[in-house]
Amino acid sequence: MTQSKADFEARLRRIGAERYHDLHPFHHRLHGGQCTPDEVRAWVINRYYYQSRIPMKDAAFMSRVENPDLRRAWRSRIEDHDGSDGNEGGIRRWLRLASAVGLDPDYVASCDGVLPTTKFAVDAYVRFVRDKTLLEAVAASLTELFAPAIHAARIEGLLQNYAFADDSSLSYFRRRLTEAPKDVAFGLQWVLDHADTAEKQDQATAALIFKTDVLWSQLDALWGAYVAPARIPPGAWQPGTGMAQAAA
Amino acid sequence: MTQSKADFEARLRRIGAERYHDLHPFHHRLHGGQCTPDEVRAWVINRYYYQSRIPMKDAAFMSRVENPDLRRAWRSRIEDHDGSDGNEGGIRRWLRLASAVGLDPDYVASCDGVLPTTKFAVDAYVRFVRDKTLLEAVAASLTELFAPAIHAARIEGLLQNYAFADDSSLSYFRRRLTEAPKDVAFGLQWVLDHADTAEKQDQATAALIFKTDVLWSQLDALWGAYVAPARIPPGAWQPGTGMAQAAA
Repeated sequence: MTQSKADFEARLRRIGAERYHDLHPFHHRLHGGQCTPDEVRAWVINRYYYQSRIPMKDAAFMSRVENPDLRRAWRSRIEDHDGSDGNEGGIRRWLRLASAVGLDPDYVASCDGVLPTTKFAVDAYVRFVRDKTLLEAVAASLTELFAPAIHAARIEGLLQNYAFADDSSLSYFRRRLTEAPKDVAFGLQWVLDHADTAEKQDQATAALIFKTDVLWSQLDALWGAYVAPARIPPGAWQPGTGMAQAAA
Repeated sequence: MTQSKADFEARLRRIGAERYHDLHPFHHRLHGGQCTPDEVRAWVINRYYYQSRIPMKDAAFMSRVENPDLRRAWRSRIEDHDGSDGNEGGIRRWLRLASAVGLDPDYVASCDGVLPTTKFAVDAYVRFVRDKTLLEAVAASLTELFAPAIHAARIEGLLQNYAFADDSSLSYFRRRLTEAPKDVAFGLQWVLDHADTAEKQDQATAALIFKTDVLWSQLDALWGAYVAPARIPPGAWQPGTGMAQAAA
């Protein structure tokens, strides 16, 4: 039976409460200051891969949208990440974080050393958006509903616990605090309006669950590879490499 | 510079020696008899997803091959897994293993409870074969070069260490001992013949490395989720569920 918009929205929000990656122990460790410098670096390197693919994901989405209004509403997501006049963009801001933790930003941008599991998960998301219905693609983006809380906790936790944390290195997260709510308000309304049958509501729900799996899988991989007893897969980043000249 | 066929073959074989998943500690644990029954079940459930996608991968390959001789040579791979008159096929043989370890084969075949990371890795392989050059697709299949050794070790290790192991439950591996060498002899020769520039040799090498990453990622996920301290991701198989009636 088709749910009311209010019930359906509550169902989507429950997915966040039950499966969003703020529940993963790696984030508790990171925000609580228990991560070693190399664990933070591994997170920065691998999370960069995710950031770098988001504008490609959004371009894949727009490449399938026939309605110019929808494309126009979506376009700012690419600008937010890639930058524009007067806005360096999220990707460069992330590389500032990479420098702050001692990494060579060119190494991070090369994506050498990213865990294969990170690539498989992130690439699955890009392909999901390329292959599935527009409704499922927008629904998958709704993890942004849950992002401001984790970004706020992260800013506070990192500032409190790590010497590298300051306004410059954390500008990515600070900026997302205002960007994400704008995007997700639009996306949520669009999903509520377009998921007008029980079947579509189920599809949108499954899409959002899929996306939480994409995020969770990345943290599981990070933990297995770099948190003791670490087991770094062949070819992945080795602590001590990829450092900036001065820090090396 | 283009390598000689002999040097190029040696380069491909070295990838197996350095990165094939027989080096992963989960396999040592499995073959050495240290896996708990639930760890074995988790392996059977997740590895089933890989088996189930192999014929889809081979169909994706054949859908792109214009040469009927190459399609004809490739077709037996699908028959080996899906079965034919007088051959139940690898997928049913794998479900016999599932029954032998106490699982409900219908549950295993449903792929409910498969780790998201397993799906991301395996789906990445199917898409790789769909999207990349034929040379890269065939090169990625060459992990079969390294499979007979691991299958032989597995049969011996499982027979020695686990009560469920017998000729029926292990028939999948026994059968692969004769199927894999036939397939891989063809695939290896095809790659050696068609990788006739340095660039193509590099591409084929990268494809085989990609495939070893696909296999390794699955075992890392299995270990993180089910080997103590286990951390089962949301939605994945929980020990005690999915069991056959008699064993439940």
